[in-house]
Amino acid sequence: MKAVILAVGDEVLLGDVVNTNAAYLAKQLDGIGIEILYHLTVGDDAALLRKAFVKAFESADIVLTCGGLGPTKDDLTKDSIAEAMGLTLLLNEEIKAHITALFASRGFALTENNFNQCMMPQGSVPLVNTNGTAPGVYIETGEKIVAMMPGPPSELIPMFENELKPKIITKVKKAFSEKYYMTSGYGESMLEQKMRETVPESDSYTVNTYITQSGVMVKATGRGADEAAARQEIERRDAVLKSVLGESLYSEVNEELWHWISRTLIDRNITLSAAESCTGGLFASYMTKSAGISSVFRGGIIAYDNEIKINVLGVSASTLQAHGAVSEQTAREMALCVREKFSTDIGVGITGIAGPGGATEDKPVGLVYICVNFKGESKVARNIYGGNREMVQRRSALSAMNILREFLR
Amino acid sequence: MKAVILAVGDEVLLGDVVNTNAAYLAKQLDGIGIEILYHLTVGDDAALLRKAFVKAFESADIVLTCGGLGPTKDDLTKDSIAEAMGLTLLLNEEIKAHITALFASRGFALTENNFNQCMMPQGSVPLVNTNGTAPGVYIETGEKIVAMMPGPPSELIPMFENELKPKIITKVKKAFSEKYYMTSGYGESMLEQKMRETVPESDSYTVNTYITQSGVMVKATGRGADEAAARQEIERRDAVLKSVLGESLYSEVNEELWHWISRTLIDRNITLSAAESCTGGLFASYMTKSAGISSVFRGGIIAYDNEIKINVLGVSASTLQAHGAVSEQTAREMALCVREKFSTDIGVGITGIAGPGGATEDKPVGLVYICVNFKGESKVARNIYGGNREMVQRRSALSAMNILREFLR
Repeated sequence: MKAVILAVGDEVLLGDVVNTNAAYLAKQLDGIGIEILYHLTVGDDAALLRKAFVKAFESADIVLTCGGLGPTKDDLTKDSIAEAMGLTLLLNEEIKAHITALFASRGFALTENNFNQCMMPQGSVPLVNTNGTAPGVYIETGEKIVAMMPGPPSELIPMFENELKPKIITKVKKAFSEKYYMTSGYGESMLEQKMRETVPESDSYTVNTYITQSGVMVKATGRGADEAAARQEIERRDAVLKSVLGESLYSEVNEELWHWISRTLIDRNITLSAAESCTGGLFASYMTKSAGISSVFRGGIIAYDNEIKINVLGVSASTLQAHGAVSEQTAREMALCVREKFSTDIGVGITGIAGPGGATEDKPVGLVYICVNFKGESKVARNIYGGNREMVQRRSALSAMNILREFLR
Repeated sequence: MKAVILAVGDEVLLGDVVNTNAAYLAKQLDGIGIEILYHLTVGDDAALLRKAFVKAFESADIVLTCGGLGPTKDDLTKDSIAEAMGLTLLLNEEIKAHITALFASRGFALTENNFNQCMMPQGSVPLVNTNGTAPGVYIETGEKIVAMMPGPPSELIPMFENELKPKIITKVKKAFSEKYYMTSGYGESMLEQKMRETVPESDSYTVNTYITQSGVMVKATGRGADEAAARQEIERRDAVLKSVLGESLYSEVNEELWHWISRTLIDRNITLSAAESCTGGLFASYMTKSAGISSVFRGGIIAYDNEIKINVLGVSASTLQAHGAVSEQTAREMALCVREKFSTDIGVGITGIAGPGGATEDKPVGLVYICVNFKGESKVARNIYGGNREMVQRRSALSAMNILREFLR
């Protein structure tokens, strides 16, 4: 089977948005054994879009579009493609009811152009959008498939994963099986090189890497005559692959590191609190992304100012004076103080220089001390992170999670 | 002038590399007033590449390619395009001398396939590559331009900036100007509808909307004989457009809402602290994204647990008992307590039900109370947000920023 990936939108065409969807979809399709012919990006121009679609539909078995499904005048993917395919647009009452309810819950009334989102090409199936108002569109005609998805990756990725992929898979002749290996702490190119040397790819086995928010996701795909044979291709390489991934591997389920940590804390009823300086609440905000975390995460103190470190958190003034706010000693005391103040099993302390200002002669921008205190036992890390302010903050929060993971392993 | 951006390479086609070059080049070309027709990505396939090039060269005045200029067998851009244009490849002695010297300086001898890189289409001009061995190729033929650049952005960007852009700029006729209007609080479809009714587009003026992390960015583009005329097109509609955007407009610089708030707090030396429950530190983490914020942001308390709200933050147990943790009264006390404890001008209190669990009969998932206390004066908002847990958290944090903005306006 052959596919074309068609991105629609002036924001992509003019470079205001990088087209990460094309790479994501290409990897996904390649993973299930579909050949990619080309990626094309066109702007919000109905005539050009129709032409591009017709051309793609001629040569490909599957045409995937991203973008142009919103409610505004420049969202014309659905109309243009329906026209090119000779399909009438019909009002879908179910979608209308859903969008109306959604808007009502936010206290908004529908505007005229929101009704565009309720129109669907005849014979099409809506693809549920869990993170936005625009549903996707799935059309099967003869041996061919057309699927239209929204542009924002936060909407497109779950829609592909949960709605579209299962439909496409049934069309692929060869059976396949997938397995995820979630890693944090190693770089993508290093992992890739190690894997290439140790776990060679073949027609029946491929390994792809994807950057996630917490590290690198490794996805192994096995192919075979049936699913069991495909799974076998993965299983017989599983131990070797894991030895390559080493301690970077944190989960064999597709989940970010904070979800794994939250899940583990909840399962084992281990309570957590955090004292943050340079990360300004980022670590805690990661920890509170997971549902149900309130049973174990009790809270934290963002002690940005030294006075706050002393008066609210309880770090001793003498420690701050002797070693400075950015020091191992301060990180240790922050973890200890927050753990005691919040009566938790674990206390986390993070202090550093996120930059771009604030460096001194012996303390460069990016220097961060992290301490995790687990029932009195402390682990401390000292790192100097490269990158801009946001990268230093994000890496610090991730590093704290990785230390926490060492205790939970 | 019209341009097509053509990326070549299996690594891009199969999604192993995200095509950031297309976005970079598109923005650059758009910036100098060149219309982008489309971006196309093809793999390492000479026949497909030739076909794609011929098609692009028919419709565009400028065809830019990236990738496929390296020394290996799958680097076939130069050969394929030269063939499509009917140009012979000739050995360029200057490039050969340069590459030979480069390799000698690294202690390497040239391999056979390195000579490929010394071959140039007749009539072409090499584009200097300061960060790699493969030179770019510039061809002017009649009114049209073909430029081939290497794939790695570290090589492509300086090559475009220093070598190609100066050549292209001399060809551009019409001038243009841009202005950003950053908004938060109104939806994209509502803004678009209002703008369409009030500020009609024309050949010399267009308005585009883009979703940002904090709301909607409106970008106006004016075109004219010279830059002053182009700017005039924007300026004469500026007041009307602003009246349409109303209170949603927070900045006329391309910046997120938290950057505007941080900048404003720093400029006016207004200090800030925050007490967060359902947002778990997210509001504070936004507030600490900006450099220099440590002069005004003193910190915060994440009071996830009720005991923490009482013992660490100082909310009265009777308020919690009488009204519950998710109530206007608790939000008010949280803002007040944190403001007093941290001795700041502003205290923010956020409490709600992020979900998916935790709802009661009269308190649904998504119900969030936000209080901003500015030197004793309080503003409170009660919202019921739709969407999943992360969306409720993000919207709550943004809403707190928008209330804060009312005080700062």
